[in-house]
Amino acid sequence: MRPGPGGGPYSVAMSKGRLEAFSDGVFAVIITIMVLELKAPHGADWQAFRPLLPMFLTYALSYVFLGIYWNNHHHMMHASDRINGAVLWANLHLLFWLSLVPFVTGWMGENHFAPLPTAVYGGVLFMAGVAFVILEGRLLDAGNPRLAEAVGKDVKGKISAVLYLSAIPLAFVNELIADGIYVFVAMMWLVPDRRIEKKLSAPS
Amino acid sequence: MRPGPGGGPYSVAMSKGRLEAFSDGVFAVIITIMVLELKAPHGADWQAFRPLLPMFLTYALSYVFLGIYWNNHHHMMHASDRINGAVLWANLHLLFWLSLVPFVTGWMGENHFAPLPTAVYGGVLFMAGVAFVILEGRLLDAGNPRLAEAVGKDVKGKISAVLYLSAIPLAFVNELIADGIYVFVAMMWLVPDRRIEKKLSAPS
Amino acid sequence: MRPGPGGGPYSVAMSKGRLEAFSDGVFAVIITIMVLELKAPHGADWQAFRPLLPMFLTYALSYVFLGIYWNNHHHMMHASDRINGAVLWANLHLLFWLSLVPFVTGWMGENHFAPLPTAVYGGVLFMAGVAFVILEGRLLDAGNPRLAEAVGKDVKGKISAVLYLSAIPLAFVNELIADGIYVFVAMMWLVPDRRIEKKLSAPS
Amino acid sequence: MRPGPGGGPYSVAMSKGRLEAFSDGVFAVIITIMVLELKAPHGADWQAFRPLLPMFLTYALSYVFLGIYWNNHHHMMHASDRINGAVLWANLHLLFWLSLVPFVTGWMGENHFAPLPTAVYGGVLFMAGVAFVILEGRLLDAGNPRLAEAVGKDVKGKISAVLYLSAIPLAFVNELIADGIYVFVAMMWLVPDRRIEKKLSAPS
Repeated sequence: MRPGPGGGPYSVAMSKGRLEAFSDGVFAVIITIMVLELKAPHGADWQAFRPLLPMFLTYALSYVFLGIYWNNHHHMMHASDRINGAVLWANLHLLFWLSLVPFVTGWMGENHFAPLPTAVYGGVLFMAGVAFVILEGRLLDAGNPRLAEAVGKDVKGKISAVLYLSAIPLAFVNELIADGIYVFVAMMWLVPDRRIEKKLSAPS
Repeated sequence: MRPGPGGGPYSVAMSKGRLEAFSDGVFAVIITIMVLELKAPHGADWQAFRPLLPMFLTYALSYVFLGIYWNNHHHMMHASDRINGAVLWANLHLLFWLSLVPFVTGWMGENHFAPLPTAVYGGVLFMAGVAFVILEGRLLDAGNPRLAEAVGKDVKGKISAVLYLSAIPLAFVNELIADGIYVFVAMMWLVPDRRIEKKLSAPS
Repeated sequence: MRPGPGGGPYSVAMSKGRLEAFSDGVFAVIITIMVLELKAPHGADWQAFRPLLPMFLTYALSYVFLGIYWNNHHHMMHASDRINGAVLWANLHLLFWLSLVPFVTGWMGENHFAPLPTAVYGGVLFMAGVAFVILEGRLLDAGNPRLAEAVGKDVKGKISAVLYLSAIPLAFVNELIADGIYVFVAMMWLVPDRRIEKKLSAPS
Repeated sequence: MRPGPGGGPYSVAMSKGRLEAFSDGVFAVIITIMVLELKAPHGADWQAFRPLLPMFLTYALSYVFLGIYWNNHHHMMHASDRINGAVLWANLHLLFWLSLVPFVTGWMGENHFAPLPTAVYGGVLFMAGVAFVILEGRLLDAGNPRLAEAVGKDVKGKISAVLYLSAIPLAFVNELIADGIYVFVAMMWLVPDRRIEKKLSAPS
């Protein structure tokens, strides 16, 4: 899916507010329906509880990833003033990959981190990372000098993408390596992005 | 379902903002719950992965359609200033048909594009297309000169409706023809609507 | 469930905007997840299609009911300026009964309008109607003169409640009578409420 | 999960509005998808109706809890002016535990209040209570004098946490004790928080 038609003439007509509101809605639904993958066990004893543990862990991990994306999305849009048609589609493209997170979370959790679901999980995260970089690019193309100043070269985004990509084959070697990579990337992003912060902490 | 009561006296009392917010909410939920039709397979090997492919493809196609509708809805509302009771109901009518998209997507994907689900898919898209044209009409009736200027005759909307309609019988001849039509219409809309753009690119 | 604590001291602190936004979110989710009750049939022939018909009809009926409630909610909030704690809880109480609509819709549709589900459907609609009248009362208590002027005695709300109530026993006589009543009430509300309209059509 | 990175430099860049909108979206989805745990029974007679009763009761109880949280969240945010990165994460942390409510509600309801699900229910409510206190702390750290003045020592929040915690072992003694505690805490919160009210009732 191409990120969509080039933006020029749309620039004036777009409203950032509605894009944010729609994205927030999609984020809210994705992060919440993920819990539907946690199927209530039919028994009520500890036996019934045990298979829930890997599911709960993947749920928590995916929740953190989606929280990070929402956070970064929030900051990126906050530093932007102009959007256009290309931005709209790049944003939908990002949400597409994020919308697959509940599905791969359920699949990985149900199969106790088996290699294939673990690799597919990495693939979806990789595509979401790529989509985020594309969205950043479209926002810069649309002319957002405050964002341009703040973002620099987005090293962290690129490192994440490389790590996700490497997790895909490594899941077939040992799925624990891939799982470790996912946890590491999550940690890396939980540390706030000093670059954007610094620029934006000046009164706007 | 008639698009609802004629608008006159409501005109003053309506707030466009709340209509947009509600529509965005519905769009966000529709586009996201569709992923619940992607049932996590119980196995974790390639065998379990294979039946996911047609499901994934229909998911991506429907996602693009809903993205197009959200985009067009966004532009149409942006070019409008006045809404009334008839617009509210025409909007709910459009959302009704779009809300059926996850259902027909799941049915078509699960049956590997069998003729009947493929035809019903076309039927739902046709009704959504008709509903969009009706909504446009109600907005024009409510008195939105900027929209009237921008839209012209909405040739693309009419072509889409005709194509969807023709896909219904063609699905029973060969479902691939119908599928090809759906992809073609999606492509046609991904190209931005120059008419609305041009008018709106002038500072408002 | 009592509609909640008396409002006085809250009055100043409440923001109508967030109440509307939250309600819109709940409306959007309710109206959309209802489609999840339409289970994609496993076959792909006309045989598989047939049991979908009663489900589709109940879906469409419930969609219209929820659309009416959203519409009336929209108008009632639009005519109000002051809210308080009692309004918040009366609003949550209304949303509670509406949130049960997808459940009773699924149950009634799956059982082809059998007496018990049909009666329970009427019970939920009755409670939603009562909750709407309570919310109206709390809004009037909170001091909304524009609403007081516009609403009058809310005859239609009271007639609806009586009709829903009568549909509950009648469902056990003949479920078609109850179904007919539901359709009749829906029609009655689709005709716009002239009282509110007239008052609000004056420039505010 | 730590509530996240310390806030300082973010303070300026955050928008309270988008945090509220996102939270409202998540609240709306959580409170509504909970109804998906009420599975439509396959029969249509009173026999099919009976197992629904415990489910309905847990649904109503959880609905009240989520309503209380939304209400308190609303008031807390209303009394706050400044947010930062730590607030964002503390808020996501709160929503995480609340998002588990539909799952534990379904599990407890399906097993007719058996000890283990009842204890886990208490555990999730306890964690949500802790998360609320953490969020309050982060908001105070971010510098919200109006909130500081209004909240005092949040005795009610601390009592709730202790009660939830005690319900966990008591569920294994007799689940009715735990259920009674949950109902008691719900009642305690339904009484509006006079402290915040009093302060905010002065014109802001």
